Amino acid sequence: MTAEIISVGTELLLGDIVNTNAAFLSRELAKLGISVFTQTVVGDNPQRLERAYRQAFERGADLVIAGGGLGPTEDDITKEIAAEYLGRPLVLDEATWEKIQRMFAKIHPNQQITPNNQKQALIPEGSHIFPNSNGTAPGICMEDNGRMIILLPGPPNELEPMFLEKAVPFLRSKSQTVLVSKVLKVAGVGESMVEHRIKALLDAQDNPTIAPYAKTSEVWLRITASAACEEKAYNMIAPVSAKLYGILGHAIYGEDDDTLEGVAAHLLKERGFILACAESCTGGMLTARLVNHPGISDVLQEGVTAYANEAKVRRLGVNEDLIARCGAVSAEVAAAMAEGVSRSGNNPDITVGLSTTGIAGPGGGTADKPVGRVYLGLYIPGLGIKTKELTLTGDRTKIRNRATVAALDFLRLSFLIT
Amino acid sequence: MTAEIISVGTELLLGDIVNTNAAFLSRELAKLGISVFTQTVVGDNPQRLERAYRQAFERGADLVIAGGGLGPTEDDITKEIAAEYLGRPLVLDEATWEKIQRMFAKIHPNQQITPNNQKQALIPEGSHIFPNSNGTAPGICMEDNGRMIILLPGPPNELEPMFLEKAVPFLRSKSQTVLVSKVLKVAGVGESMVEHRIKALLDAQDNPTIAPYAKTSEVWLRITASAACEEKAYNMIAPVSAKLYGILGHAIYGEDDDTLEGVAAHLLKERGFILACAESCTGGMLTARLVNHPGISDVLQEGVTAYANEAKVRRLGVNEDLIARCGAVSAEVAAAMAEGVSRSGNNPDITVGLSTTGIAGPGGGTADKPVGRVYLGLYIPGLGIKTKELTLTGDRTKIRNRATVAALDFLRLSFLIT
Repeated sequence: MTAEIISVGTELLLGDIVNTNAAFLSRELAKLGISVFTQTVVGDNPQRLERAYRQAFERGADLVIAGGGLGPTEDDITKEIAAEYLGRPLVLDEATWEKIQRMFAKIHPNQQITPNNQKQALIPEGSHIFPNSNGTAPGICMEDNGRMIILLPGPPNELEPMFLEKAVPFLRSKSQTVLVSKVLKVAGVGESMVEHRIKALLDAQDNPTIAPYAKTSEVWLRITASAACEEKAYNMIAPVSAKLYGILGHAIYGEDDDTLEGVAAHLLKERGFILACAESCTGGMLTARLVNHPGISDVLQEGVTAYANEAKVRRLGVNEDLIARCGAVSAEVAAAMAEGVSRSGNNPDITVGLSTTGIAGPGGGTADKPVGRVYLGLYIPGLGIKTKELTLTGDRTKIRNRATVAALDFLRLSFLIT
Repeated sequence: MTAEIISVGTELLLGDIVNTNAAFLSRELAKLGISVFTQTVVGDNPQRLERAYRQAFERGADLVIAGGGLGPTEDDITKEIAAEYLGRPLVLDEATWEKIQRMFAKIHPNQQITPNNQKQALIPEGSHIFPNSNGTAPGICMEDNGRMIILLPGPPNELEPMFLEKAVPFLRSKSQTVLVSKVLKVAGVGESMVEHRIKALLDAQDNPTIAPYAKTSEVWLRITASAACEEKAYNMIAPVSAKLYGILGHAIYGEDDDTLEGVAAHLLKERGFILACAESCTGGMLTARLVNHPGISDVLQEGVTAYANEAKVRRLGVNEDLIARCGAVSAEVAAAMAEGVSRSGNNPDITVGLSTTGIAGPGGGTADKPVGRVYLGLYIPGLGIKTKELTLTGDRTKIRNRATVAALDFLRLSFLIT
């Protein structure tokens, strides 16, 4: 099966946003064994969109996936043009319309729903519907004499889960072999170093394949096996996975849906600790990342973003002279913040303190402490204080993100190694 | 003049890299008044690449910009296919060849240059050459009876400076009109409601155009005018912008590069306040969003994520009985958190307290307080306390993001309206 991806949106043609959807869909289609030979971007223009569908099938695609332009407004025409192209009338889908009305009433309890909202509930006759768990516009699949068109909403946080949860099982049901993947997630080691260490395995790969993906401060290794059934595929993955663990050891923090914050929460709970964060340069990002994990309330006590130096003294009990002597960005202050947030808590005997202080930029760097210098502090009751100095690259947001990942990994490794 | 962008590379079709070149080129072409109606991605395949050039011109493009595939290896064919398509022989450009030999000798002083390096110095007859300051492959421009093809190297650190420094002056000398845009940014009103309210303007639009884009909890309206010079374009934008302000009023929080956190910071500074955040469901995200703004240290005192109820009592002085009586997720507790974070600070007379408490899910919802219920609290010294009840949709992360935007907007509007 070969596919083409059509991304619809004037904002893509103006360069206002980068087309991450095309990369995501291409990657996921490759995992299904579906080749993508062309990606196209067109604007919200009926003639050009119709031509894009037509030319994709003329070039030999069996499947066209169009992302974007499913919204309630008049310039959202992706569905209308696809229906016209395949000669399908649009009919109101009652279930979708009820869902949209319910969502609207919940968000705007005192407002009348505007008529243009009904547009999203109009579905080409005979389509398969992918319900949208994260927005109003449903996904749609139309099949017509060996041509398949799948329409997905444009926002990545709607398109990605809908594709993975709804479209992938649908497409998989049409294929003969199964592809099974397992992801090993690595933190604290750069992509090129990971590839260097597993080079022999990468060079020898065939089936299963090993594909490294670099994320912000993480590297994911996807092992994919193709076999006649799931069990066979898992049996082929197991020895490759074992070899990677043998080489990378503790640098692998988890698998598949594991997150660094979830692993950290699990380790704290297992060992009977709770956590308090004291943040400066990360400014709430570390605590916010931990709160991503739904079960975090079991172990997260609090987070203090002591942005002003005065707040470091008042909230965390950091010594004023220490800040004056060493600077707010120093290993000493990181240590005092970590210990301070634990000791100023309710139950210092079991409260792990984790701190960040650094220079996120763009200003504030010196020759001695350049932009990107970050200190982490970790206080574990009964074990004492550890600090770590980092020199991170990137812009303000990237430095703060990298410091956040490094802090979680510092916590994780300290539990594993001590 | 209309252009199409062709990005060449199998790594784009596998989703291994995101196509930032297409976004960059589109943005820069828009500034030159050159419309981009289609972007295409194809692999290193002669037939498909030839068809991509041909179809681009058949669709009416005057200019095709192809990025990538200019390297020394055999699968780099972008130049060869373009030359063949326009019927131009490749001839050795001595200046380029000498430059490549010099660079090679510098990098590999003890090696003989291999013959395949000469491939990069072969130029289609009659082309205009853009020298490459950051690599070996030069850029090339071919003109042929109203069709223009520009070839650029693929790595962004070569493509971007070459385009800005060499291709832009070249193209500018050939263009008649400029396009100027202005973005108005709206918070607190959904996309369909914004469009409903400005429908008459949207229906009547021609030049300038108005294009709405939905972001997470924001809507951006881009007004774009095409004119003979920048000044004329700005004069065309001004009355449209004024009409939108007339309809949407305070819902417009800023323009162009403004951010909600930057606007909030500006309002606080202007009125002589500093800010302290008390977060529960947003869990640090509100403070982290504020810290995105580089100048935030002028006004941000601290943020307390009082995740455990005990921390609400100890850090923020929230009354234990109040939590027991009203629940941690209540307007009363939101109010007490906002006032508490201000009063427990160093300078309560000028410290605005902003709080969030809610149920982000997936668990924890009740019939009375479902997942998505969030209370905001705002304490402004001298003005007192306000609270706001929200019912938000989406998954855990979306609810937290929407609560964060709503809190910033609550702060902003309270300053504007009081």
